[in-house]
Parts: sequence; structure tokens; C-alpha cells
Amino acid sequence: MAQVDLINRDPQQMNNYIQVEFDDVLAEPNGTHSAECVWRNSHKCFTCGKNLCYKILTILTGIFVALGWGCTFACVSYGVIWCIAPCMRLLHVCLNPTKKILSIILSSFCGPIMSVQALIFSRIHVTNSTGEPPKPIDYMVGADSGKVKNFK
Amino acid sequence: MAQVDLINRDPQQMNNYIQVEFDDVLAEPNGTHSAECVWRNSHKCFTCGKNLCYKILTILTGIFVALGWGCTFACVSYGVIWCIAPCMRLLHVCLNPTKKILSIILSSFCGPIMSVQALIFSRIHVTNSTGEPPKPIDYMVGADSGKVKNFK
Amino acid sequence: MAQVDLINRDPQQMNNYIQVEFDDVLAEPNGTHSAECVWRNSHKCFTCGKNLCYKILTILTGIFVALGWGCTFACVSYGVIWCIAPCMRLLHVCLNPTKKILSIILSSFCGPIMSVQALIFSRIHVTNSTGEPPKPIDYMVGADSGKVKNFK
Amino acid sequence: MAQVDLINRDPQQMNNYIQVEFDDVLAEPNGTHSAECVWRNSHKCFTCGKNLCYKILTILTGIFVALGWGCTFACVSYGVIWCIAPCMRLLHVCLNPTKKILSIILSSFCGPIMSVQALIFSRIHVTNSTGEPPKPIDYMVGADSGKVKNFK
Amino acid sequence: MAQVDLINRDPQQMNNYIQVEFDDVLAEPNGTHSAECVWRNSHKCFTCGKNLCYKILTILTGIFVALGWGCTFACVSYGVIWCIAPCMRLLHVCLNPTKKILSIILSSFCGPIMSVQALIFSRIHVTNSTGEPPKPIDYMVGADSGKVKNFK
Amino acid sequence: MAQVDLINRDPQQMNNYIQVEFDDVLAEPNGTHSAECVWRNSHKCFTCGKNLCYKILTILTGIFVALGWGCTFACVSYGVIWCIAPCMRLLHVCLNPTKKILSIILSSFCGPIMSVQALIFSRIHVTNSTGEPPKPIDYMVGADSGKVKNFK
Amino acid sequence: MAQVDLINRDPQQMNNYIQVEFDDVLAEPNGTHSAECVWRNSHKCFTCGKNLCYKILTILTGIFVALGWGCTFACVSYGVIWCIAPCMRLLHVCLNPTKKILSIILSSFCGPIMSVQALIFSRIHVTNSTGEPPKPIDYMVGADSGKVKNFK
Amino acid sequence: MAQVDLINRDPQQMNNYIQVEFDDVLAEPNGTHSAECVWRNSHKCFTCGKNLCYKILTILTGIFVALGWGCTFACVSYGVIWCIAPCMRLLHVCLNPTKKILSIILSSFCGPIMSVQALIFSRIHVTNSTGEPPKPIDYMVGADSGKVKNFK
Amino acid sequence: MAQVDLINRDPQQMNNYIQVEFDDVLAEPNGTHSAECVWRNSHKCFTCGKNLCYKILTILTGIFVALGWGCTFACVSYGVIWCIAPCMRLLHVCLNPTKKILSIILSSFCGPIMSVQALIFSRIHVTNSTGEPPKPIDYMVGADSGKVKNFK
Amino acid sequence: MAQVDLINRDPQQMNNYIQVEFDDVLAEPNGTHSAECVWRNSHKCFTCGKNLCYKILTILTGIFVALGWGCTFACVSYGVIWCIAPCMRLLHVCLNPTKKILSIILSSFCGPIMSVQALIFSRIHVTNSTGEPPKPIDYMVGADSGKVKNFK
Amino acid sequence: MAQVDLINRDPQQMNNYIQVEFDDVLAEPNGTHSAECVWRNSHKCFTCGKNLCYKILTILTGIFVALGWGCTFACVSYGVIWCIAPCMRLLHVCLNPTKKILSIILSSFCGPIMSVQALIFSRIHVTNSTGEPPKPIDYMVGADSGKVKNFK
Repeated sequence: MAQVDLINRDPQQMNNYIQVEFDDVLAEPNGTHSAECVWRNSHKCFTCGKNLCYKILTILTGIFVALGWGCTFACVSYGVIWCIAPCMRLLHVCLNPTKKILSIILSSFCGPIMSVQALIFSRIHVTNSTGEPPKPIDYMVGADSGKVKNFK
Repeated sequence: MAQVDLINRDPQQMNNYIQVEFDDVLAEPNGTHSAECVWRNSHKCFTCGKNLCYKILTILTGIFVALGWGCTFACVSYGVIWCIAPCMRLLHVCLNPTKKILSIILSSFCGPIMSVQALIFSRIHVTNSTGEPPKPIDYMVGADSGKVKNFK
Repeated sequence: MAQVDLINRDPQQMNNYIQVEFDDVLAEPNGTHSAECVWRNSHKCFTCGKNLCYKILTILTGIFVALGWGCTFACVSYGVIWCIAPCMRLLHVCLNPTKKILSIILSSFCGPIMSVQALIFSRIHVTNSTGEPPKPIDYMVGADSGKVKNFK
Repeated sequence: MAQVDLINRDPQQMNNYIQVEFDDVLAEPNGTHSAECVWRNSHKCFTCGKNLCYKILTILTGIFVALGWGCTFACVSYGVIWCIAPCMRLLHVCLNPTKKILSIILSSFCGPIMSVQALIFSRIHVTNSTGEPPKPIDYMVGADSGKVKNFK
Repeated sequence: MAQVDLINRDPQQMNNYIQVEFDDVLAEPNGTHSAECVWRNSHKCFTCGKNLCYKILTILTGIFVALGWGCTFACVSYGVIWCIAPCMRLLHVCLNPTKKILSIILSSFCGPIMSVQALIFSRIHVTNSTGEPPKPIDYMVGADSGKVKNFK
Repeated sequence: MAQVDLINRDPQQMNNYIQVEFDDVLAEPNGTHSAECVWRNSHKCFTCGKNLCYKILTILTGIFVALGWGCTFACVSYGVIWCIAPCMRLLHVCLNPTKKILSIILSSFCGPIMSVQALIFSRIHVTNSTGEPPKPIDYMVGADSGKVKNFK
Repeated sequence: MAQVDLINRDPQQMNNYIQVEFDDVLAEPNGTHSAECVWRNSHKCFTCGKNLCYKILTILTGIFVALGWGCTFACVSYGVIWCIAPCMRLLHVCLNPTKKILSIILSSFCGPIMSVQALIFSRIHVTNSTGEPPKPIDYMVGADSGKVKNFK
Repeated sequence: MAQVDLINRDPQQMNNYIQVEFDDVLAEPNGTHSAECVWRNSHKCFTCGKNLCYKILTILTGIFVALGWGCTFACVSYGVIWCIAPCMRLLHVCLNPTKKILSIILSSFCGPIMSVQALIFSRIHVTNSTGEPPKPIDYMVGADSGKVKNFK
Repeated sequence: MAQVDLINRDPQQMNNYIQVEFDDVLAEPNGTHSAECVWRNSHKCFTCGKNLCYKILTILTGIFVALGWGCTFACVSYGVIWCIAPCMRLLHVCLNPTKKILSIILSSFCGPIMSVQALIFSRIHVTNSTGEPPKPIDYMVGADSGKVKNFK
Repeated sequence: MAQVDLINRDPQQMNNYIQVEFDDVLAEPNGTHSAECVWRNSHKCFTCGKNLCYKILTILTGIFVALGWGCTFACVSYGVIWCIAPCMRLLHVCLNPTKKILSIILSSFCGPIMSVQALIFSRIHVTNSTGEPPKPIDYMVGADSGKVKNFK
Repeated sequence: MAQVDLINRDPQQMNNYIQVEFDDVLAEPNGTHSAECVWRNSHKCFTCGKNLCYKILTILTGIFVALGWGCTFACVSYGVIWCIAPCMRLLHVCLNPTKKILSIILSSFCGPIMSVQALIFSRIHVTNSTGEPPKPIDYMVGADSGKVKNFK
């Protein structure tokens, strides 16, 4: 049985968002400082109160809670390994032909419909010209008048 | 019959999401540590409880469950190999002409309709000019006034 | 008649998704191992049960099933080759003029409508300028004031 | 009359999707093999049954079916060549003026409307700036304050 | 009068989709071959039947049909050349002023409306930054806190 | 008066879509040929019938039709030149101030509304990263946990 | 007074779409020619009829029409120059403050709303990878299984 | 007082769209010419009539109209300079805090909502592959079959 | 107190859109000139009338108006500096925690929903091929026929 | 206590949009100048009135207002530092598990649904060809005719 | 126990948006200065009032508030570490098979439907041509007329 690491008790940073020190909770910006003794004693009260509460709670209940979680995970593991995983494998084998049959049918009946509707995007033509924006529309200049000087 | 590997019992990493050790379940961030004896005993209780439960369950039922799954997969394999796979092949052969006939009909009746509707995208013209954004609209400058100085 | 390959019986990998060995179905992650004898006997029971069931089923029915599928595919082939394929050819010949006539009519009546609607995309003008985002709108600066210093 | 090719009877791969051999229909993945004699006899039964059925059917009906299709295609060809094709030509000649007249009318009445609506896309301005995303909006910094240090 | 080409009777590939030979209609994939004599006689029956039918039909009616189409196209040509073409020219002359007048009116009344609506696309700003995706939103970091270390 | 060109009577290819020769109307693909005499006489009948009909029709009515069209176009030209063209010029002069007045009003009332709505597109930010697709979402990894190893 | 150009009477190509010669109206494609005398006389009748009609009409009314248009344009010019143009200038001066006031109000009330809605486009992230399309989804491979070999 | 320019009376091209000469109004295309005397006299009548009318109208009313516009613009200038411009400045000062307050409130309440909705565009993944279009879907090839040769 | 600049009385171009000279209001294009004396006297009347009116109005009311605006802006400045600006600062301080709390809540409840919906854009695949447009759909060519020559 | 800067009293440009001098409020464009004495006295009246009013108001109320704001901000700071900030920290800790649980559930139930819907964008194919726009549709040219010369 | 830093009391810039000095609250722009003594005393009153109030409040309540927050965070930490974190781990293990089963089912039933609908985007064709915009539509030029000179 591996030895438990008593210093770093969260080797996988799982719960590090709960790590609240004094300066994570209380902070005074410059120009709004309280008296020094107040601030020093606030720091002490916060830290002691927090540690004391937590240690009492864990001493009372920690070991029994750990034992309970151990048994729970053993049962869950047994159920998943011996029952659910083979069931998923069976489902995978059985539904694979369904997928293929559905694909054949859809490919036969819907495939041509989709392909013929796809023709609507098949004639896009874009001309790009760099330079001036299109001039304001001078409608007096129609399709057949070579010069546009007439109505100027 | 291939020899079973007693060390690495999940050679295909199929169930490795169930692998829960003590530090996957319980973790204390810095600054919130319980007493050392509490933590050390929690570790022991969790590990022992988990192993004990699992071993008892598998000894009682493991062999019979494995036998059951073996027979089940044999029946399923027989059904898929000798019945469903040839049926899919038959379906594939039969639906192929359907797909082609549908394609001919759709191509004749819907193809021209789609193609003529595709004309709507056939005259896109984009002019790109790099540089200044279009100036605020000074509407006093119409289409025919050469200079824009007049109403300034 | 080509000799059947007794070793590789799925030369086209058609049914390889049904290939289930013991470690495809049952697997124990590290830290959740059952007793060794349980695991070794589970392996044996699964493999033997699966092989036995399958062999019995195939010996009883395999040959007759294969004969039946042979006759079925012969009939289907006959129908497709001598009847359906020429029919599709005939359909192709007959519907081709329909497609052309429809095209002429649509091209005459809908083509100009679509072309004239396509004019709506014919004046797109995009100016790109690289650099600063457009400044916050200072509306006090209108179209005709040369300098923007006045209301600053 | 061209000599018929007795070896390659589908020179245009028209019906090659019907080509079903034994291993296109039946296949056993590794680990799920039936007894050798079963597999060998299945192969024989499938192949013989398929060939026998097909040959009997074609000997009985093949020649008459071919004769029938020959006459059918002759009649269809006559109809298309001497009647439908000239009709389509006539239709093409007659509908061409319709198309032009429709084009003139639409170009006169709808063309200007579309062109004037196209003005809506004529002032697109895009500024691209590479680098930082736009900063979180600090609304205290309005349009006219030169520095943004004040409410920081 | 130009001499008719008796070999290549479709110099413009107008009807080449009707060209159906024996192997365009009937084809046997590998593995599904009928008896040799059946196949050889099918080929003969199809080809002879098709040629015979067609020749009889054309001998009986071909010349009269051709004469009829000649007269028809003469009348249509007369109508189009002497009546419809000048009418289209007249229509073109008459509708041209309509188009211009409509353009002037629309340009006066709708042009400014469209131009002012086009302003909605005039302030697009896109910043592109290459590299990392935007980090998960850590809302605790607001607009005015210089460092983001506080709530980590 | 310019001499009329008796050879090329359509110098501007105006009516060349009516040009129907024998092989534009009737065509036999390879493998579907009628008897030679039938084809040769069909060609003659078509060409003669077509020419005869057309010449008779034009001899009877051609000159009078041409005279009628001449007078018609003279009247239309007179109307367009002396009446409609000056009217369009007058309309152009009169509607130009309307356009400018409308522009001033719209620019004053709608311009700011549109400009302020354009702000909605002013903060688009796109980050492009080349390479791997975004990984499957492992939601166990939140915003504040430095490492993602915990729940693996 | 400038001398009128008697040769080129449309120096600004204003009415050149009315220019209809004989071959703009009547044209015979190759293979559909009328008799030579018919065509030659048609040409003469068309040209003479057109010229005669037009000259008679202009001699009768041309001078008076020109005089009328002269007076009309004089009155319109007087109205536009001395009345409408100053009115537009006055309108431009008066509506300019309206535009600015509206801009200030909208910028104050709608500007922030639009800017905050623009945040919706501020987190677009696109990853581009060149090469293979995304593989068919094999859902058996979840987020936490390192290898995907298990269910193959 | 600056001397008025008697030659160029529109130094800012403000009204140059009213400039109508004879050939801006009346024009005869080639092939539709009236008699020479008619055209020459039309030109004279148009020019004289236009000049005469305009000069009489301006002599009668021009000076009084100019005096009236002078006084009008003086009053308008007084109103705008001494009343409206300071009012706009006052409005600008007063609405600026409104804008900032609105920005703070919206940034607090709507900003986070918009930012969290923007996550919907944060996982776009595009793979580009150059070359062949995606092949027609052959649904018989599923996710788990390594080769696609089986149903060909 | 800074000396007022008597020459340039609008140093910030604030009101330069009101600057109307004679040729901003009245202009005669070439070919539409009034008599010289009329034009010269119009210029004089306009300029004198405008100057006279404006000077009388300003002498009567200018000083008092300026005094009034001075007092008004003093009061407004006092209100903004001593009352509204600190209020906005207070609002900024108070709403900042609201924004953060809202962000935490939304990030917890809506963030995962949006992220999982973003998966819909995570499988876009685009193939680009340069060159020919996709050929007209020949539906006779299905997924499994290697060659497309058969129905040509 | 830092010494207050009596010269630059807005070191953070917080209120510089209230800075209104004489020429920010009153301005006369060229050509619309009032008499010199009027303008000089207007300047004096505006400046003196503004300064006098502001100084009287600040002498009467400035000190008390500053004292009030000082106390107000002290109370607000106390509330935010000692109460609201720790509350937000607590909320952050408590809602973090909620976010993760929600993510696990959504990833399990909605993730696969979204991923399978994403397949709709997985087959986009774009062909780009540079050069000519697509020709006008000549529908007489179908899928199977090699040449398009026939109906020209 | 770490020593508290009495100088920098907000080492993580958590509350620096509350830092309000005198010049963050009150500021006078140039040209709107109050009397010097007023400004100097305002500064003193603001700073003293703010400091006094804050210090009194913290002396009275600071230590007890800190003690309360310490205990609160201890309880919350205990609940999260020993109860909620293992629950999430359990949920993760249990929902993982659900996700996979759902994926298999959706992939079988919805996957083919989505794939066949994706065909609609599979035929996009874009032609880009650089240069001139598409010419105004001259509808008289149809598909079959080689030259466009006829109706000019």
C-alpha cells in the first residue's frame, strides 16, 4: 500500500479553488487603511478560527467518511466492469447493421433529392474589381448610349 | 488459448475512467489541512474498504458472469454473420436501381428548375478599395456636379 | 471453382466489428483487481462458452443457409440484369427530351426574371482599411466642419 | 455485326454492383470461426446454387427477352428521332423571341428597381486590425476625455 | 444543294443519347454468366430486332415526315423574320425611354433612402489575433483590476 | 442609298437562331440508321419543301410588309426625337432638386439613427489558431484548476 | 450663336438607340433566303417610306416644337436658379443643427446599448487545420480513454 | 466688397445640371435626318426663345429676389450663431454624464449576459483539404471497417 | 483675460456651415445668363441686405445674450463638478461587485450550456478544388460503378 | 497628506468635457461678422459672468460638499471591503462545483446530440475557377451530348 | 503563521477599484476654477472625513468580522472536500457510460440522416473573375446570337 504524502495532500490540484488565505478574503486598497492593531488582530482571528473549525470537524468524522466512500466506489466499479461495459459492447455490435441499413435506404431515397437541390449553389459568379467604388447611378446612361456626355 | 495477462488486466484502456485512487477522491488544499493521524487513517480506511468489497463481489459472481457473456456473444455473432450481413448485401443490390431511377427523374424535372434559380447568384459584383472608409454622405453633391465646393 | 481460404475467412474485413475477444468485453483498471484465480477462470469460461455455442450453431444450420442465399442472389441477379437495367436505359432515353423541353421553357420564362433579380447583388462595395477601429462616434463633427476641435 | 465478347460480358461496368461472390456475402472474423468442413461445404453450396439457378433462368427466357428489348428500343428511337427532336427544335425557335421580349420588358421595369435597391450594399466598410482583442468596455471613458486614467 | 452524308448521319451529336447498343442494355458481371449460346443468341436477337423494326418504320413514313417538317419550319421562319423580329425592335425602341424615366424617378426618390440605410454596414470592425483561443471566462477579473491573481 | 447585300442578308446575326438546316432537325445516331434511299430522299424533301414555302410567302407579301415597317419606324422616331427626349431632359432637371432635398432631410433624421445602429458590428473579434481542432470538452477542468490531471 | 452641325446631328449620342436601318429590322439567316428581287425591293420600300414620312412630319411641326421647348427650359431655369437653389441652401443650414442634436441624443442613449450588444461577437474562435476531414464519429471513444483501440 | 465675376457666374458648379443647350434637348441619329432648313431654323428658334424668356424674367424680378434672400440668411445666421449653437453645447455637456451612467449600468447588468452568450461561437473548427470533392457517400462503409472493398 | 481675436472669430470652425456668400446662393450656368446690370445689382443687394440685418440684430441683443450664456454655463459646471461626477464615481464602485456576482452566476449556469451548444460548429469540413465546376449531374453514374461510359 | 495642486486641478482629465471658453460657445463665420465693439463686449460679459457665478457658488458650499463625499466614500469602502468582497469569494467557492456538475451532465446528454448534428456541415465542397463567368444557360445542351453545336 | 504585511494590504489587487482619492472624486477643468482657499480646504475636509470614518468603523467591528469569516470558510471547505468532491467523482464515473450509449444510438440513427442532408452543400461552385463589373444587362443579346451589334 503506497504511503500517503502528508505535506502535499492535493497532488492533482483537484480542490485548489477552495484555498482561501486571509489576503484572499480581506484586502484594503491604498488610502483606505484601518489602524495597524486592528489589521494585525483581524489576521490572527481569521487564521486561527478557520484552522480550529476545520480540524475539529475532520477529527470527528474524517475516517468514517473515507471508509464509506471506499465501499461505494468498489460497488460502482464492480457494476460498471462486469455488467455495463459488456452491455455497451453488445449494443455496439447490434446497432452497427442498423446504421448501415439506414444509410443504404437514405442514400437511395434522399441522396438524389439533396444532390439536385445542391444545384442552386452551382452557378455563383463573383467579379472582384479593385479600386473605385461604383459611381452614383446616373440612370440617364442606358445600355446603348456609348457616351454619357449628353445629359450632363 | 492465449494466456491471460494477470498484471495489466485492461490492455485496451477500456475502463480506465473507473480507476479511482484515494487522491482522486479526497484532497486537501494548502492551508486547510486536517490532523496528520486523521489523514493517514482516512487513507487506509478508503483503500482497504474498496479492495475488500470488490474482491468479495468478484469471487462470488465473476466466473458465472463471464460464462454468460461468452454464450451471448456467440449467438449474436451467428445471427449477424449468417443472416443480417447477407440481408444487407441483398438490400444494397435491390435499392441501387431505385436510387438511379430516382436520380433520372429528379434530374429531369427538378434539375432545370434548380439551375434556373441558381441564376440569382450569377451577377455578384464586389469592388474592394483599400484605404479610407466611405466619407459621411454629403447629399448636396449629386450625380452631375463636378465639384463639391459649392455648399461648403 | 476457387479454393476457399480456411485461415482468413473475412478477406474483405466485412464483419470485423463483431470480433469480440475476452479483453474486448471484460477489463479491470489498475487498483481494482479481483483475485487471480477468479480472473483466470473468467477468461477460460468466456472463451470456451463462446466457441462452443458458435460451432454448434454453424454445424447445425450453416450449409443450408449458404445454399439458400446462393439461390436468392441468382434470382435477384437475373431480375436486375434482364429487366431492371434495360428499363432504366429506356427511362433515361425517354426523360431526356423532357428535361430539355423543360429547360427551354424555364430558360425562356424564368431565366430573365432571375437575371434581373440578380442585379441586387451587383453593386456591393467594400472598403477595407487596416489599423485602428472606427473611433467612438463624436456626432458633433458633421459633414461640413473641416476641423473637429470645436466641441472637444 | 460485331462479335460478342464472351469473356468480359459487361464491358462498361454497368452492372458490377450485382457481382456477389461467396466472400461478399458470408464472412467470419477472427476468433469466431466455425468448423472447417462446415465452412468448406457452405462455400460449395452457395456457389453451385447460385450458378445453377441463374443458368436455368437465362436458358429459359434470355433470348426472347433480348428480342423484345430490341424492338422496343427501335420504336423509341424512331419516335425520338423523327418527332420529338424536331419538335424541340421548333419550340426552341418559337420561345426565343418570347425570352427576348420578356427580357426587354423586365429590363425596363424591374431593372431600375433592382439597381436602386442594390445601393444598400454599397457602403460596407470593414476595418481590420491585427493583434489584441477589443478590451473589456470601460464605459467611464467617453468620447471626449483625452485620458482614460481618471476612474481607474 | 449540299450532298447528304450517309455515314455520319448525326454530325452535330444531337441525338447521341439514343444510341443504344447491345452492351448498353444487357450486361452480366463476372461470376453471373449465363450459358455461352444463350448470350450469343441474345446478342443476335437484340440487334436484328432493333434494326428491322427501325428500318420498316422509316421506310413507311420517313419521307413524308421530312417534307412536313420542311414546310413547318418555312412558315415559322417567315413569321419570325418578317413580323416578330421587327416588333421586338419596335418594342426595344419604345421601352427604352420608359426605362430611363423610371430610372430618374427611382434615383430621385429611392436612391437617398437606400443610401442612408446603407450606413448600417459602415462601421464593421474586425480584430484578428492569431494564436490561443480566448481563455475560459474568469468573470472575477473585471475591467479595473490590474492583476487577476486574487481569486485564483 | 446603300446597295443591299444579296449574299449575307443578316450582317448582324440578328436572326441566326432560326437557321435550321436538315441536320439541325433530323439526325440518326450510329447503330440506328434507316435505309440509304430513305435518308437521301428525306433530305431532299425537307430542303425543297422548306425553300418553296418560304419563297412563295415572301413573294406574295414581302414588299408591302417592308414598306409598312418603314413608315412605322419613321413615326416612332419622330415622336421620340421631338417629344419624349426633351421631356426626359425636363424631368431630369426638375427631379434633381427633389433628390437633393430628400437627401438633406434623410441625412439629418435617419443618418444618425443608422450610424448608431451600426455600432453593433463594431466589436467583432476573431481568433484564428492553426492546428488541432478544439479537444472534446472535459468539463471537469474548470476555470481555476491549474492542472487537468485530477479526474482523468 | 454657335453654328449648327448639319452632318452629325447627335453629337452626344443621346438618341442613337432609335437608329434603325433596314438590316436592323429585317434579316434572313443563311438557308432561308427569299428571291433576290423581293429582297432588293423590300430594301427600297423600307428606306424610302421611312425617310419620306419623317421628313414630312418635321417640316410641318419641327420649328414650332423647338421654339416651345426653348421657352419652357427658360422658365424652368429661372425657377430653379432664383428660387429652389437658395431654398435648398437654407434647408441645409437649418437642418444641420437638427442632425447634430439628434446625434448627441442617440449617442447618449442608444450608443451604450448597441456597444454592449456588440459583445456577442467578441469571442469568436476559429481553428483551421489543413488536411484530413474530421473522421466519422466513433462515439465509443470518449473524453477520458487514452486509446481508441478497445472497441474496434 | 469683392467684385462679381460676370463671365463665370457659377464658380462652384452648383447649378450646372440646368445647363441645356440645343443638342442636349434635340438630336437626330444617323439615318433619321430631317430637311436641312428645318434643322437650322429649329436651332435658331430654340436658342432665341430660351434666351429671351430668361432675360425678361430676370430683369423684372432678379434684384428684389436677391435682396430678400440676403435678409433671410442674415436672420437665420443670427439665430444659429447666438442661440442654437450654445444650446447644442449645453446639451452636449448635460447628456455626457447620462451616457456614462447608462454605460456603467449596462456594462454591469448586460455585459456578462452578452459575454456568456458569445461562448456559442467559441469552438468553431474548420478543416480545409484541397483536392478532390468528398466522394459520393457509400454508406456500406461504416466507422469500424478498415477496408471498403467488400461491397464494391 | 485672453484678448479676443477680432479677425478670425470662429477659431474652431464650429459654425462654418452657415457661411453663405452670394455665389453660394445664386449661380447661373453657362448659356443661361441674365443681363449684366441685373447680375451686378443682385450681387450688391444680397450682400448689403445680409450684412445690414445681421449687424442691427447683434448690436441690439448680442451683449446680453453672451452674459446670459456665461451664467448658465457656470451653474451647469458647478452641478456637474461637485455633484454628478462624484455620484458617477460612487455608482461605479457600487455596481462593480454586482457585475462580478452576475458574472459568477452566469458563468456557472449558462457557461456550460453555451459551450455544449458550440459543438454544433465543431465539425465543419470544406474541400476546395480549383478548376472545373462540378459537372452536370449524370445520375446514371452511381456510387459503385467504376466507369461512367455505359450510358453515354 | 499630499499637497493639493492648485494649478492643474483635474490631473486625470476627468471633467474636461465641461471646459467651455467663449469661443466654444459663440463663433461667427467669415462674412457674418457683427460690429467690433459688440463682439469685444460679448466676450467680456460671457467670461466675467461665468467666473463670478462659479466662484460664489463654490465659496458658499464647496467645503461642506467635500466633507460629505469623504464620509460617504468611507462608509462604502468599509461595506465593500469587509462584507461584499468575502461574500463574493464564498459565492465563487460554492458555485464552482455547480458549474462542474452541470458540465458533466450536459456533456453526457447534450454533447452527443450536438456532435451528431454537426455532421450537417461536414461535406461542404467548393470549387473555385478563375476566369469567365458561367455562360448563359443553353439548356439544349444536356448531360450526354458531347458537342453543343447542334442547336446553335 | 505568516506575518501580515502592514504596508501593502491588498497584495492581490483585489479591491483596488475602491481606491478613491480626492482627485478621483472632485476635479475642476481649466477655466472653471474656484477660489484657492476653497479648493485647499475642500481637499482637507474630504481626506480627513474619509479617514476618520473608516478607522472608527474598523476599530469597532473589524476583528469580530474577520473571526466570523474564518469559521465560515472552514465549514465550507469541510463540506466541499469531504462530500461534494467525491460525489462529483462518482457522478463522472456513472454518467460516462450513459454518454457512450447515447453516442452509439445517435450515431446509428441520426448520423446517416445528417450525412445525407449534408449533401446540399456539396456542389457549391464559385467563379471569380477579376476586372470589370458585369455589364448592364442587354437582354436583346440571347444565348445564340454570336454578335451583339444588331440592336445597338
